[in-house]
Amino acid sequence: MADERPRLRTSLGRAELDRVLVRGHDLAAELLGSATYADMVVLLLLGRMPSDGERRMVDALLVSLIEHGLVKPVVAARFVYSNAPESLQAAVAAALLGAGSRHLGSSEWCARMLQEASAADPSADPGAVARRVVQEHRVAGDRIPGIGHRTHAEGDPRADRLLEIAHETGVHGRHCQLLESIAEIASSEAGRRLPVNVTGAIAAIASDIGFRWQVARGFALMSRTLGALAHIQEEIDEPLSDELVRLIQQAVDYDAEG
Amino acid sequence: MADERPRLRTSLGRAELDRVLVRGHDLAAELLGSATYADMVVLLLLGRMPSDGERRMVDALLVSLIEHGLVKPVVAARFVYSNAPESLQAAVAAALLGAGSRHLGSSEWCARMLQEASAADPSADPGAVARRVVQEHRVAGDRIPGIGHRTHAEGDPRADRLLEIAHETGVHGRHCQLLESIAEIASSEAGRRLPVNVTGAIAAIASDIGFRWQVARGFALMSRTLGALAHIQEEIDEPLSDELVRLIQQAVDYDAEG
Amino acid sequence: MADERPRLRTSLGRAELDRVLVRGHDLAAELLGSATYADMVVLLLLGRMPSDGERRMVDALLVSLIEHGLVKPVVAARFVYSNAPESLQAAVAAALLGAGSRHLGSSEWCARMLQEASAADPSADPGAVARRVVQEHRVAGDRIPGIGHRTHAEGDPRADRLLEIAHETGVHGRHCQLLESIAEIASSEAGRRLPVNVTGAIAAIASDIGFRWQVARGFALMSRTLGALAHIQEEIDEPLSDELVRLIQQAVDYDAEG
Amino acid sequence: MADERPRLRTSLGRAELDRVLVRGHDLAAELLGSATYADMVVLLLLGRMPSDGERRMVDALLVSLIEHGLVKPVVAARFVYSNAPESLQAAVAAALLGAGSRHLGSSEWCARMLQEASAADPSADPGAVARRVVQEHRVAGDRIPGIGHRTHAEGDPRADRLLEIAHETGVHGRHCQLLESIAEIASSEAGRRLPVNVTGAIAAIASDIGFRWQVARGFALMSRTLGALAHIQEEIDEPLSDELVRLIQQAVDYDAEG
Repeated sequence: MADERPRLRTSLGRAELDRVLVRGHDLAAELLGSATYADMVVLLLLGRMPSDGERRMVDALLVSLIEHGLVKPVVAARFVYSNAPESLQAAVAAALLGAGSRHLGSSEWCARMLQEASAADPSADPGAVARRVVQEHRVAGDRIPGIGHRTHAEGDPRADRLLEIAHETGVHGRHCQLLESIAEIASSEAGRRLPVNVTGAIAAIASDIGFRWQVARGFALMSRTLGALAHIQEEIDEPLSDELVRLIQQAVDYDAEG
Repeated sequence: MADERPRLRTSLGRAELDRVLVRGHDLAAELLGSATYADMVVLLLLGRMPSDGERRMVDALLVSLIEHGLVKPVVAARFVYSNAPESLQAAVAAALLGAGSRHLGSSEWCARMLQEASAADPSADPGAVARRVVQEHRVAGDRIPGIGHRTHAEGDPRADRLLEIAHETGVHGRHCQLLESIAEIASSEAGRRLPVNVTGAIAAIASDIGFRWQVARGFALMSRTLGALAHIQEEIDEPLSDELVRLIQQAVDYDAEG
Repeated sequence: MADERPRLRTSLGRAELDRVLVRGHDLAAELLGSATYADMVVLLLLGRMPSDGERRMVDALLVSLIEHGLVKPVVAARFVYSNAPESLQAAVAAALLGAGSRHLGSSEWCARMLQEASAADPSADPGAVARRVVQEHRVAGDRIPGIGHRTHAEGDPRADRLLEIAHETGVHGRHCQLLESIAEIASSEAGRRLPVNVTGAIAAIASDIGFRWQVARGFALMSRTLGALAHIQEEIDEPLSDELVRLIQQAVDYDAEG
Repeated sequence: MADERPRLRTSLGRAELDRVLVRGHDLAAELLGSATYADMVVLLLLGRMPSDGERRMVDALLVSLIEHGLVKPVVAARFVYSNAPESLQAAVAAALLGAGSRHLGSSEWCARMLQEASAADPSADPGAVARRVVQEHRVAGDRIPGIGHRTHAEGDPRADRLLEIAHETGVHGRHCQLLESIAEIASSEAGRRLPVNVTGAIAAIASDIGFRWQVARGFALMSRTLGALAHIQEEIDEPLSDELVRLIQQAVDYDAEG
């Protein structure tokens, strides 16, 4: 019977009686006290420890999306907490549920575009690949993910700084070059600035470190877990929810004929 | 009308046209490239930057719960992802939803116990406070949170290492002493080892750094967000879910008379 | 090895090659076309089909909490949907996450209070049991769940109507009597009306039908799943989220010194 | 300032001091005691009350997906509940999170296909529209949603029964005809039976009643909320989770070299 069944396997970790193993390392003896959270991001997702530059870069990626004021996911978290304070984890989960296609998902689409375009033609000049990518999106009538920004039209300072750090840390590579070329070509075609935005920068940099596009959105999730916790703690001390929902109810008319 | 309405306020952050502010810091100019994820945990939740020792300690807290093999929350995350791969965030959220009272919540109860006992009698000797706490739990017939462990009866190596790092980093203080005294007294009364466990160590150390008991569970949430991401990535490459659910269905009898 | 392992069992259902069994019934042949949603609530949770009166009563319980305007859970659902429209289920889930202790959980505490008080003294007069319950809460300084209402001080018309239907359908029994006595005694002691509220009525009626207190909150969850769907559909046609979050951001000051 | 702001509006409901309005109806006075859950599905999502036939049909749609044994979403719900029993709503939410594109989402894709094909050519013969739909999917290399089934190759008895009830209740219309034609043509082209499956039948019938494809998945969500509740109640009485997770951990090897 064992023969018929596929071999089931995990390479991530195991809890044993006297130790916990993570990717082959003894958690207590080898990792606690020396590994940082950013190290663990690389170890768990890439199976290796980062260089010093990569560690600094991963921390910058994690920090860039932690806090953005009272955006929808943190309001959702506050509202859930306000009704279910016994369940901190549910309020944080509600914040994560809003990390979807219209909010943070663009880092996923952008990383996918960069990784697939790059893999399809690994020896080609980034500029040539970029021209092809821009043309394909033009023909299909699709928006290019990772460039342009509604509120920061002149460029998102977070994106610029992340790309600068990518140079400083030696992480800046083929995917960053490709996205920068894409932004340049698309801006020139559109006749207005379409700079690399923050989710684009995260996507390109994560790709250059070696992260797969499927988990690019994960950086936002780790950031937002912390951001949601901070908003929930503030909600405990100075609750906003009741007043905000009253504001909403006053602003919205009920019209049964609608 | 403005007068009647309470002043609504957040001190966490705001997105402006050309910059994002976090706790008064310009995110791109001041934090990106210098602040680590652990720094941001302290900045957002405590409103200040950590010392070097605190940063190392916070990283150790975050690392200690990241991975524990195929526990229930990561299986839930894999199952959700397997059915809804378009929604990475929902799968991670499912993992967080299981961070409840029977799994990781004990860090919250333990931190509350330590902070309330300590605050009630701030000048008292930790040993005296510990005796009172143990006695109160004995009288009420309540289990003391943060000590004892089902699988690691001889002591959880993660807890021991965390407390060691607390000494190394100068973080070890009143709450750690209190929990260690409680463990000692309770062990002596019970006639068997009831060592500080990993959620207890996290609770005591987080309390000594200054975190409030209400967010102590948050360390587990940040850890598990990363842990869930790693399991989901593995599920993409080598799916286990279909085989695991088949295993479950074979193991469980249907009995309508039940 | 089979001997060592406990027997694992479900009595709910099984999918076979050519049929699906639910509580011993062939779903397609016996239930589809004849059973209503309310029937299935009773079949799945109580293991039997309802009487006509019980069916009407269960429907009334399910209907009573479906819609209450722009309350926090539906705003959370709209905000999640607005960011993640590819994931309808996540937006509905966010609405459910807010069905917690401060919002709808009181039906659970009330049902528990009624079932435990009633079971402790099954032959006692409801009035005598009610006096004991009120006294115990007074001594402990605890609020009695299921009575009193912030906005409907003169009585919640939904509660009155539910109890009326309980009489009409023959469902009204020991638990309803007990809660009505509790409300009367507590009102008289407090010197102001503390009428049975809607979650209290649901709790008492569900208890009289035979539902266990642990799933009393479930009626609200089934209701709110539908309510959230309706709000999400409206959000698709006439989105409110962007405007509501702008309203919130304008109303809340950022004050880093906070 | 009011002029600049768009008018914000909901037509679903409002809670007033002495009554709750739902789609213009007084909830307590008009709906409680007469409206069933299925009635409210139609009232809230379509803005009108159903005919008797539609009510019976909607109940059948709701009943068809309630229970399917130990599938992934209910195992996820049990695992979440087992760790966080204080948060019933989170366990139910976890079950809903798994109602995604690979599991129940096909009802959404199928309803969209039927509604768009039908709207594009409202006066055309269903057979002609069906041929065009099948051809378009063949050319694009896409699977047709709503037909074919992995386990019920000979046809899903639930789908057959639902379509039968659609005839009995007078609901069977253009969208059902279209899907049946599609299934016939696709089967003939494929040289093997590709019958309408249960999510396809739900999609076609919901479309014929007037529901929009965007909320077709909602029937599954209402069903699964109840199904999850039943599994959680069973988990309270006869917990399976600890044993199931042990089974999983024994079946999966840890291999750090993976």
